[in-house]
Amino acid sequence: MTSPTALANWLEKPAVTNGIFVVILFNAILLGLETWDAAMARAGWLIELLDALCLAVFVVELALKLFAYRLRFFQNGWNLFDFTIVAISLVPSTQGFSVLRALRILRVLRVISVAPRLRRVVEGFVTALPGMGSVFLLMAIIFYIGSVMATKLFGDAFPDWFGTLGLSAYSLFQIMTLESWSMGIVRPVMDVYPQAWMFFVPFILVTTFVVVNLLVGLVVNSMQDAHLEEDREQTDSYRDQVLTRLEAIEAQLRKDRE
Amino acid sequence: MTSPTALANWLEKPAVTNGIFVVILFNAILLGLETWDAAMARAGWLIELLDALCLAVFVVELALKLFAYRLRFFQNGWNLFDFTIVAISLVPSTQGFSVLRALRILRVLRVISVAPRLRRVVEGFVTALPGMGSVFLLMAIIFYIGSVMATKLFGDAFPDWFGTLGLSAYSLFQIMTLESWSMGIVRPVMDVYPQAWMFFVPFILVTTFVVVNLLVGLVVNSMQDAHLEEDREQTDSYRDQVLTRLEAIEAQLRKDRE
Amino acid sequence: MTSPTALANWLEKPAVTNGIFVVILFNAILLGLETWDAAMARAGWLIELLDALCLAVFVVELALKLFAYRLRFFQNGWNLFDFTIVAISLVPSTQGFSVLRALRILRVLRVISVAPRLRRVVEGFVTALPGMGSVFLLMAIIFYIGSVMATKLFGDAFPDWFGTLGLSAYSLFQIMTLESWSMGIVRPVMDVYPQAWMFFVPFILVTTFVVVNLLVGLVVNSMQDAHLEEDREQTDSYRDQVLTRLEAIEAQLRKDRE
Amino acid sequence: MTSPTALANWLEKPAVTNGIFVVILFNAILLGLETWDAAMARAGWLIELLDALCLAVFVVELALKLFAYRLRFFQNGWNLFDFTIVAISLVPSTQGFSVLRALRILRVLRVISVAPRLRRVVEGFVTALPGMGSVFLLMAIIFYIGSVMATKLFGDAFPDWFGTLGLSAYSLFQIMTLESWSMGIVRPVMDVYPQAWMFFVPFILVTTFVVVNLLVGLVVNSMQDAHLEEDREQTDSYRDQVLTRLEAIEAQLRKDRE
Repeated sequence: MTSPTALANWLEKPAVTNGIFVVILFNAILLGLETWDAAMARAGWLIELLDALCLAVFVVELALKLFAYRLRFFQNGWNLFDFTIVAISLVPSTQGFSVLRALRILRVLRVISVAPRLRRVVEGFVTALPGMGSVFLLMAIIFYIGSVMATKLFGDAFPDWFGTLGLSAYSLFQIMTLESWSMGIVRPVMDVYPQAWMFFVPFILVTTFVVVNLLVGLVVNSMQDAHLEEDREQTDSYRDQVLTRLEAIEAQLRKDRE
Repeated sequence: MTSPTALANWLEKPAVTNGIFVVILFNAILLGLETWDAAMARAGWLIELLDALCLAVFVVELALKLFAYRLRFFQNGWNLFDFTIVAISLVPSTQGFSVLRALRILRVLRVISVAPRLRRVVEGFVTALPGMGSVFLLMAIIFYIGSVMATKLFGDAFPDWFGTLGLSAYSLFQIMTLESWSMGIVRPVMDVYPQAWMFFVPFILVTTFVVVNLLVGLVVNSMQDAHLEEDREQTDSYRDQVLTRLEAIEAQLRKDRE
Repeated sequence: MTSPTALANWLEKPAVTNGIFVVILFNAILLGLETWDAAMARAGWLIELLDALCLAVFVVELALKLFAYRLRFFQNGWNLFDFTIVAISLVPSTQGFSVLRALRILRVLRVISVAPRLRRVVEGFVTALPGMGSVFLLMAIIFYIGSVMATKLFGDAFPDWFGTLGLSAYSLFQIMTLESWSMGIVRPVMDVYPQAWMFFVPFILVTTFVVVNLLVGLVVNSMQDAHLEEDREQTDSYRDQVLTRLEAIEAQLRKDRE
Repeated sequence: MTSPTALANWLEKPAVTNGIFVVILFNAILLGLETWDAAMARAGWLIELLDALCLAVFVVELALKLFAYRLRFFQNGWNLFDFTIVAISLVPSTQGFSVLRALRILRVLRVISVAPRLRRVVEGFVTALPGMGSVFLLMAIIFYIGSVMATKLFGDAFPDWFGTLGLSAYSLFQIMTLESWSMGIVRPVMDVYPQAWMFFVPFILVTTFVVVNLLVGLVVNSMQDAHLEEDREQTDSYRDQVLTRLEAIEAQLRKDRE
């Protein structure tokens, strides 16, 4: 019987994390093979057995981590991430929804939590999100208003595109990405409501601008840490040096005078 | 009877602005429910009654603000914004155009004027616009020239796309967004006028470049305030310190000499 | 009889340039009216007469400028620009090709050469071009290679899209803009040549990256003058001050010592 | 018999490299003419003869370089690039696959290895790639997971789009470029699986963000060398000067005191 601390140390050994990494990659290949009908026909039982073994490894790993870190386990976002992914994989084995079976491939995302470089990239993206919170909120308001307006204005004539709030929101998302917005949607709508461009063209202009703003903001925020911070630190340390030295010279001159 | 100043103070209390905020959100949900046929069939009268109550709250709030601030009310852009939105909502109740009914959802935009963070984001966008005025003007000139040329060249053969100045401007806007520009418009046009690409390809190149310039300019302008200003202020204060100290040292040295 | 210099001074007076500006705008409206059939049916002769008058004003203005500046006239790019545009307008009146008639609207571009702010924006764009010369050249090489390969590989099966070098270049331009590249072109091509994606997907990846590089390069180059230059000048002047002062202090200390 | 060193010097003479440059351009024109049926019908034998001559020049040049530089030849990336391109051109003459014939146009890429300015642009692009390695890896993981999920979820109902891992990856690439994603793919899929948007919309949001991040990162990395480096060097040299001088002043003051 090992103590929790000894277990935590063992779990953080490179040999163990590398082992887990190999199991994730092996599992990723297995899950890929499952989509290949010829392989499944020949060795389906083997693939499913090996897949179950991989899952068992993950479950044991998580159980050991839970035992080692106790409640501290849930304070780390990446542990919660691993826990959710493995939990999703365990559900279909009892209920068998095909969608949940497909979600098992999400286990491959664990590769991100194991590889430190990928982890840092994702952390950079995630920490950039809150800084753009107001712009996301603005986008949500624009979409809500746009969906209500489109449903009321065009819902009766085009129930497939604007029949409900949800359909309108999806159609507006498509229009925002500029996919078939004119030939596919707005020109047919304008055959019935000739003034419809007065709704859609401003919508495109506003959302395109907000999206560009959002993307640039996110990218700038997520890149800043790496490059700019370094630059700024150098500048700050240089400035401190100059000011300290100038103060020293002044102090010396004052002393000389006395 | 309260004085205008006391009323203005009362209107600016957090309790009151938060109350208005809640009414806006509640109204947003009501207007969303109006698009749901099942809800309208069951409780349409209730939804419309509550909607009228919300509108009444906005009218009373604006009337109080008008009384409290008098003509100064119209000096604030956000007050004008609120005033216009509520005014639009009052028109359909007397005339009943379906378009004006749809515009009532614009009331949700009031959430922007009430929430300070959203207000600042929108103000950042709006103050960035004048700086790109020349580029907007250039874009307008390009579109006017493009529309006249397209109407004269392709208007007779393709009246649906280029029959009038307005249709041409819309089609060119679609082409600028790159939506179905080739398969949908330019290839059919080239079947009749094989040289048509000599008009459309340069149009795409020029407008894409100007649009990228416009967007980058707007984003840079609207972001500058937040990040760069802070940086620049720090740099300026540091530079002032260094120069002041250097002057002091020089002055002291000059005195020492005398 | 005025001297060339006096004439040049007169031509540069605000009253004269503003007058030309008004004529350009008036001409722009006339050329727009020409696309409106109802207006042409009623007052076509008047519109064409006024249009001819505007052209006469431009011809006289250019003739005066030619007389005033002599050969120096052709050293200014904007003069060449105006000269070309007016020359194009004069051709159709003798030959009457409908395309050349449509080109008369290009006269409106003169508004750019007359308005100093628009002039500066366009000059900013144009001076940014040479800096990206190598990238343009690279793009041309990629398109030439892509066109030859596409013509040889897919020309026989898809003569409409890849029959000649020109058709291939146009189709590749469409694919570069991502318009219907897959559903419209690559999926049908893959029905005949299943490996076609090995040509098109790398083409899209490479050209998208080069285009983004080109646009960012152009925008950065064309914006640099305004913002960065100012910043850099301030930095340079501050640095000069610091270094001069430090030298002065050192010199004084050296003197004190002697 | 010349020595390897003398041969290397001769090969690096401007006259020789310019000669190779002319042969490449001439060959590019020849390969373009090969796509022109009329030219091939009239002078096909001449074009093929001249093409073979150009290839002979390249083979001789490479053979001389191999003799001059020996194994060092393979240490230079551009030599490997030239070697591969010429080797590809030699294969079809023995086997005659039409695809390999089309690859001969890649010889024009040699213009990049010969022209120093193009070389530097491409080197800028290539050296920027490793810096974004983690983001590329992340993209590959997202595509692998997306492909497996799409194949499992939609493969049975839409075998043309999502039948195998490869087809799914291609369809997801198309969706990532936003080409016909909604009208062409997601709306038909939603007719069968109404919840399909829950897979595709997040996929679009995530990949668009990662792509923008990737492109911005690559562009910033590939541009940094030119502009920022210069700026940073100036800043560093200025800072060194200031600190050296301040130290000198302090030293002098300390001496004065003693």
